[in-house]
Amino acid sequence: MRLVRFRTADGIFTGCVEGDALCEVAGTPLPRRYSLDEVKLLAPCSPSKIVAVGLNYVDHAREVNLPIPEEPLLFLKPPSSIVGPGDAVRLPTQSSRVDYEAELAVVIGRTASNASREDARELILGYTCLNDITARDLQRKDGQWTRAKSFDTFCPIGPWIETELDPSDLRIQLLLNGESKQDSRTSNLVFDPFVLIEHISAIMTLLPGDVIATGTAAGIGPLKAGDTVEVRIEGIGSLVNPVEVATR
Amino acid sequence: MRLVRFRTADGIFTGCVEGDALCEVAGTPLPRRYSLDEVKLLAPCSPSKIVAVGLNYVDHAREVNLPIPEEPLLFLKPPSSIVGPGDAVRLPTQSSRVDYEAELAVVIGRTASNASREDARELILGYTCLNDITARDLQRKDGQWTRAKSFDTFCPIGPWIETELDPSDLRIQLLLNGESKQDSRTSNLVFDPFVLIEHISAIMTLLPGDVIATGTAAGIGPLKAGDTVEVRIEGIGSLVNPVEVATR
Repeated sequence: MRLVRFRTADGIFTGCVEGDALCEVAGTPLPRRYSLDEVKLLAPCSPSKIVAVGLNYVDHAREVNLPIPEEPLLFLKPPSSIVGPGDAVRLPTQSSRVDYEAELAVVIGRTASNASREDARELILGYTCLNDITARDLQRKDGQWTRAKSFDTFCPIGPWIETELDPSDLRIQLLLNGESKQDSRTSNLVFDPFVLIEHISAIMTLLPGDVIATGTAAGIGPLKAGDTVEVRIEGIGSLVNPVEVATR
Repeated sequence: MRLVRFRTADGIFTGCVEGDALCEVAGTPLPRRYSLDEVKLLAPCSPSKIVAVGLNYVDHAREVNLPIPEEPLLFLKPPSSIVGPGDAVRLPTQSSRVDYEAELAVVIGRTASNASREDARELILGYTCLNDITARDLQRKDGQWTRAKSFDTFCPIGPWIETELDPSDLRIQLLLNGESKQDSRTSNLVFDPFVLIEHISAIMTLLPGDVIATGTAAGIGPLKAGDTVEVRIEGIGSLVNPVEVATR
């Protein structure tokens, strides 16, 4: 099942995508139906927190000259950084190098505290695409990654939550203006989604809708105004966002 | 005005403290009145994010042998780490050194994006006490501060939001089992609340209820099970929490 949040002239709703059609998820006997192109898709969840994992692909750790962590290396992105499919990523004036990072995102379905990796599967609602936009120059300058990862629009998520998916070996790609820049498989993850949930839920309680961004593969690179950036994951689909300059 | 959130057998409410009395804030002609000791005070706000500032007192930067940042050094704590006055801080098994950090917290009252320091004052709802509990060993080990700062119960906030307060020169203390461990003044802040709002709101939109933890002074030190830890700020009051060992 592909779960979406969407906006129409009447408000914001949750729905289920079937091909090009969209069926409202509602308790009513006659839920409304739409075609995908007559609604505005929003980020498919509204997390209380976004827990992200650094250096979780061997090849990416190598390209940034950092050792592979013995344990998952965590950071947080604020909910205010979220945008949906088609929304612009805005390049802030404070940075001169803003990078894309294609990531598989796990969406939590049930409250998780001290979960085992064996129990993790049933705590997951599903999977979606996430672009962990990063001001690379500020990341290096600050040491702490928070500012670099937290600008408004720095967390495109979508287009939907795929609830029926085995995340163990999916092709994950980043396309910049249609050109392949990252191309890996989730089988290359150092820590898989279930291990991540075990690790994270031993630190902080995960709530329904919370997002885990599982890290990016090699091939990171910069965005410029006018670009179109796409995260494409096998079995999910494509998250496409235009890039523009932020106006203050 | 002192704003609180509190729980009774009937639910969770917002109220206003006057001495030992508490008046429900409600649109009804006869809001209920309580005495403070017949309700359970909760964390006084429910932020979408907690933005914290590292090394924002000169003496603390010196005691941890780190340079004073040229710009505010930001990190995030997750909302799941929040507890209220009187709630236990739980020491996780993953750490052998968990520290207190007394901090002045700013609570945002209105949506703030690209705010100037001059406009910041009117965006603030008020101020409260915050204890930025930190697993010092994990902070050093990880490099990124997220895990060390994000355990459940690692963000006591309260007891209330004081809306009428000049934050420029308040005594701020940490008392451990009644003994003074930190004792400074907010006049020693490197970046004051208004400069912080200017800096942070140029990165991420601040929403009503969001919290800025303004950093801690010298005198940090460890907690052990059985301790009682108190953050006391002039003009606000005391945030008191017991310390216990987390059970998995």
